Amino acid sequence: MKTYFDCVPCFLRQALDLARFVTDDETIHENVIREVLRKASTINLSDTPPAMGQHIHRLVRQMTNNDDPYRQVKDTYNRFALDIYDEMTNKITSADNPFDTAVRLAIAGNIIDFGPQSHLTHQQVTQTIEECFTAELSADAVARLQQAILDADNILYLADNAGEIVFDRLLIEQLPHDKITLAVKGGPVINDATMHDAETAGLTTLVDVIDNGSDAPGTILTDCSDSFRKHFQQADLIIAKGQGNYETLSGADANIFFLLKAKCPIIAQHLDVPLGSLVLTTTQPQQTDLVSA
Amino acid sequence: MKTYFDCVPCFLRQALDLARFVTDDETIHENVIREVLRKASTINLSDTPPAMGQHIHRLVRQMTNNDDPYRQVKDTYNRFALDIYDEMTNKITSADNPFDTAVRLAIAGNIIDFGPQSHLTHQQVTQTIEECFTAELSADAVARLQQAILDADNILYLADNAGEIVFDRLLIEQLPHDKITLAVKGGPVINDATMHDAETAGLTTLVDVIDNGSDAPGTILTDCSDSFRKHFQQADLIIAKGQGNYETLSGADANIFFLLKAKCPIIAQHLDVPLGSLVLTTTQPQQTDLVSA
Repeated sequence: MKTYFDCVPCFLRQALDLARFVTDDETIHENVIREVLRKASTINLSDTPPAMGQHIHRLVRQMTNNDDPYRQVKDTYNRFALDIYDEMTNKITSADNPFDTAVRLAIAGNIIDFGPQSHLTHQQVTQTIEECFTAELSADAVARLQQAILDADNILYLADNAGEIVFDRLLIEQLPHDKITLAVKGGPVINDATMHDAETAGLTTLVDVIDNGSDAPGTILTDCSDSFRKHFQQADLIIAKGQGNYETLSGADANIFFLLKAKCPIIAQHLDVPLGSLVLTTTQPQQTDLVSA
Repeated sequence: MKTYFDCVPCFLRQALDLARFVTDDETIHENVIREVLRKASTINLSDTPPAMGQHIHRLVRQMTNNDDPYRQVKDTYNRFALDIYDEMTNKITSADNPFDTAVRLAIAGNIIDFGPQSHLTHQQVTQTIEECFTAELSADAVARLQQAILDADNILYLADNAGEIVFDRLLIEQLPHDKITLAVKGGPVINDATMHDAETAGLTTLVDVIDNGSDAPGTILTDCSDSFRKHFQQADLIIAKGQGNYETLSGADANIFFLLKAKCPIIAQHLDVPLGSLVLTTTQPQQTDLVSA
């Protein structure tokens, strides 16, 4: 997905929110804004939005000498999700369609995203979870994902955020573990999950976990490690979580199912769904009806 | 009022909205955004926000070869306001306190502002008018303005927008006409009133009307004509309408009463009032309690 003009004011707002989140130093706030303005004035609009996101977050980490500003937020939401893990497992095992329920929870977990929104409350997360069981989601789309998983030999699951990764575990527990490789980010960016979060969520003892070698808030293949790209090419099914992965891979030549909550108006428009929708869609043109509104 | 960091993303959004309002040409949209980004990266934050507004609107007028993109919008809202002029006059003359009612209507008219909001409906204007009669507004503040008008010999009334200027006429009709000079903008910017709108509103036959020699969406004194500055210095009371005049003159060394609707969150915060409040405040430190919430 290319960068839209409307992304530009949003980059600025996100950069300001981020700078304020990381430090109270107004000189740094100003320097961040000026540098993002300079960078954005020469932006290549055919780049995906996470390319600018990567730049902004690197900039703030450098300016504040803070390698991982969201570490505490990530820990908080990992704990939050682990605290309700048993309850959610019961929801899944007692459901008429455990796979459908696990998919819904994995998508609902994508609300734990500090990219498009700088403020998030536990209440918002709880509400998203409560609503996910009855939210619109095409049964056909879920069935096709289930069939694709059965048909696949080599599944690459691209995680998105910390906290959310515990919800991914709920879904992964419904899948054939031996087929799955889970990928996390190669370095901290926003509240995206890294290896530490995969360990905290208990996933490293369940499936193979790799990192993608990149600190972009999405999957910019050219920025990923050779090793990750090999996994990506060898996978016959990719399950990609979150907006950043959709933004960077929606045009990829691969068999990808995207699971995300549409939290940004531009992405919702790109997907032709109402803002806030649970989305399960693919890169395959013949399956565009998989988008649920 | 200085430019806050939060104004920067808003400048970008306004520039994009403006470019889209004026033309469908995406190349122009992109050029506008890039130029505003470049300009904003070197912005002097001690300048007031209307300085950047002036730059953005000049840029779009130049790029689109359109001297007055809001002419049609201005005509529409002048007509809209003139259509309800008799009804509003009756409201004032039949009110217990005609001056208070006229002040409320003049402030309510400030909703007709295409700066902070790119979309405005007649229904929003109608609702603002309906609500203004009972909205919170300090009776003390209104009484002080009334006394200041009685005490003054030479009143300069700074108009803000077209359409709104008809509401200014309703207030001006309650004032001693011979004391008043009304000032409009020297050239088109957003939907700010120019001499044409003062004529349309029937004000040129009621009071002396001058223009300020500037196309800034506020009153940047250094950008105004010598003639206007002389009027400004000689006035012993200034009634300044709208956010742009508040942003540019809130720190001025003059006896100014500001009448505005707080439509921007930063201005509302600066005034310490809820967003959407009717505001009647002054530059005089001892009268800061004039702010109504």
